[in-house]
Amino acid sequence: MSERPYNFSAGPAVLPPEVLQEARGALLDLDGSGIGVLEHSHRGEVFRRVLAEAEAACRALANIPEDYAVLFLQGGAATQFHMLPANFLPEDGVADYLVTGAWSKKALAEARHYGAVHIAASGAKGGFREIPGAAEIACSAAPSYVHFTSNNTIYGTQWAREPEPPESSWLACDASSDVFSRPIEIARYGLLYAGAQKNLGPAGVTLVVLRRALLQRAVRELPAMLRYALHAENNSLYNTPPAFGIYVMGRVFAWLQRQGGLAEMARRNAEKAQIVYAAMEGDFYRAVAHPNSRSHMNAVFRTPSAELDSRFVQEAEAAGLRGLRGHRSVGGMRASLYNAFPRAGCLALAEFMRDFARRAG
Amino acid sequence: MSERPYNFSAGPAVLPPEVLQEARGALLDLDGSGIGVLEHSHRGEVFRRVLAEAEAACRALANIPEDYAVLFLQGGAATQFHMLPANFLPEDGVADYLVTGAWSKKALAEARHYGAVHIAASGAKGGFREIPGAAEIACSAAPSYVHFTSNNTIYGTQWAREPEPPESSWLACDASSDVFSRPIEIARYGLLYAGAQKNLGPAGVTLVVLRRALLQRAVRELPAMLRYALHAENNSLYNTPPAFGIYVMGRVFAWLQRQGGLAEMARRNAEKAQIVYAAMEGDFYRAVAHPNSRSHMNAVFRTPSAELDSRFVQEAEAAGLRGLRGHRSVGGMRASLYNAFPRAGCLALAEFMRDFARRAG
Repeated sequence: MSERPYNFSAGPAVLPPEVLQEARGALLDLDGSGIGVLEHSHRGEVFRRVLAEAEAACRALANIPEDYAVLFLQGGAATQFHMLPANFLPEDGVADYLVTGAWSKKALAEARHYGAVHIAASGAKGGFREIPGAAEIACSAAPSYVHFTSNNTIYGTQWAREPEPPESSWLACDASSDVFSRPIEIARYGLLYAGAQKNLGPAGVTLVVLRRALLQRAVRELPAMLRYALHAENNSLYNTPPAFGIYVMGRVFAWLQRQGGLAEMARRNAEKAQIVYAAMEGDFYRAVAHPNSRSHMNAVFRTPSAELDSRFVQEAEAAGLRGLRGHRSVGGMRASLYNAFPRAGCLALAEFMRDFARRAG
Repeated sequence: MSERPYNFSAGPAVLPPEVLQEARGALLDLDGSGIGVLEHSHRGEVFRRVLAEAEAACRALANIPEDYAVLFLQGGAATQFHMLPANFLPEDGVADYLVTGAWSKKALAEARHYGAVHIAASGAKGGFREIPGAAEIACSAAPSYVHFTSNNTIYGTQWAREPEPPESSWLACDASSDVFSRPIEIARYGLLYAGAQKNLGPAGVTLVVLRRALLQRAVRELPAMLRYALHAENNSLYNTPPAFGIYVMGRVFAWLQRQGGLAEMARRNAEKAQIVYAAMEGDFYRAVAHPNSRSHMNAVFRTPSAELDSRFVQEAEAAGLRGLRGHRSVGGMRASLYNAFPRAGCLALAEFMRDFARRAG
């Protein structure tokens, strides 16, 4: 195809074309080794360099302090949902969860396998249209950790800043859908995890950043693959890692750095989102998220009727605007505007939205 | 590079060049969709077709009966080491393990987290140079399952045929390093798993084939990602799957079928191994594995001294024969000859071995 369509998929999602070109080369010959990236031993020098470079690029990009481990694991955020409480929630302990949508609820459900949970805030009553304000958050006295989901792809809501855990506790965050879309102060977190397939790379690799001091505080005996400490001791090489995903993620980190780093990405992402939200002004479209909670990553919106929503999605598809159908639980439309999604695609969508409203409104 | 070196890596390992070329195309445009394989929603039609085709190709290739589920999971064999007992070994139950090397021992260790284990046979005394014969296997009365490792990459040993479980029990197999290298009668197994990165594809996807009747027999409440039944109900789409790995695996299944299927692969693999083992005849080389247990996948051997081993590996490397250094626990050399490894590479190695022996012997 000479012209690529705009891919608004919520994840797996669009990746930078430069990175795809690098990956194409690496499939046949990684770094002049004569052997492709899928075929190198994970114990060999060439792959060890890939891994070291990915970690270094990640640390440089997000300014990750030395006392944090950077891990590349498998199993997606869904596996972190149980690894986190398995390691850090004792049977007689309590973990606090801030429930802002479907993913937080899934994370919460897994914690119940290991200990008690306390819902420190929930947006359920408001249909998850709004992120709880500081005054609505009531943590328990001494939670093992406080978990939140920084961005909610389904409702299109995003925390503007981190919630505050009690002083004795620490923050755990599922950052799958907005990781590295803006600057982040890692020292505010105990553990942050993100499936790669939205902002960082292909599905099948999960970035985990955690404070090393926590590694000694695992609360139960666990099988090897569930132990953060073992993965950290082995520098993500306890078992064969998802090598290709790590390679691509490393190239994405380098690409983000070349774009100007996280501050520049935050600026671009805000501008991109603004272009799309501005097209919702007037009576025709309604954004699902409350204005104070609107995500810069996923703009979720509806027309006046389900029939028009369907027509919108079909006509957009025909116009080269792909993947706009909303999540099955919410309906409507969802435009995902992750780091690699281009500004030009936002302009094209906004133009299409205005035109569609004129024709159908 | 105009000429690719021969890649004897034990895994990740060599893949068919045709499949790498297909993957290169798919990175930019999957099946004419205009969107690359890393960027498609796993809920969309295009990826669903990839998944359905990979499953269909797997079933056709290995003649997998309808009453078996075919799953594509994450976490490697190392995750199966605990998922298997977590699902099927009750606290008051016993699982039997046939211990034939490092990987069996790791699998065994994870079972102890969940119930009792019985070592039905062990090759430890003989340094794992030999696969136990039928007379040496003593299963417990009614094990929850009987686990074995069909091929041992580290020592270069391979079961010639499956062990027999007691009638009330079923076979569980870690087939990571010889899966689909020869015909397999799936009905003899309850559950078979294989990390992809040796015979099937890139690291980061694990093939699991299991008898559907077992799905109702899970013995404990588990987090979602550890439940085979949930993955089976959702057709490997409970969470975002390792899409690229599944795509490549599907292309490898199709490639194997085009080569003539598993019977033809068995013939080729036997011939390839024979070429390499024949070069060990005489006094200079010693194969680590007992002749009755020699693997067709990994030929492990030594020269008369560790110094000569090192020189062998270095000179081979310079001659374009890569990845021949043996596993750190065994030393010597290891030539991995998986499905995608070409006969020409075996001839090149055999010639090099004879020449090296003449020069150094």
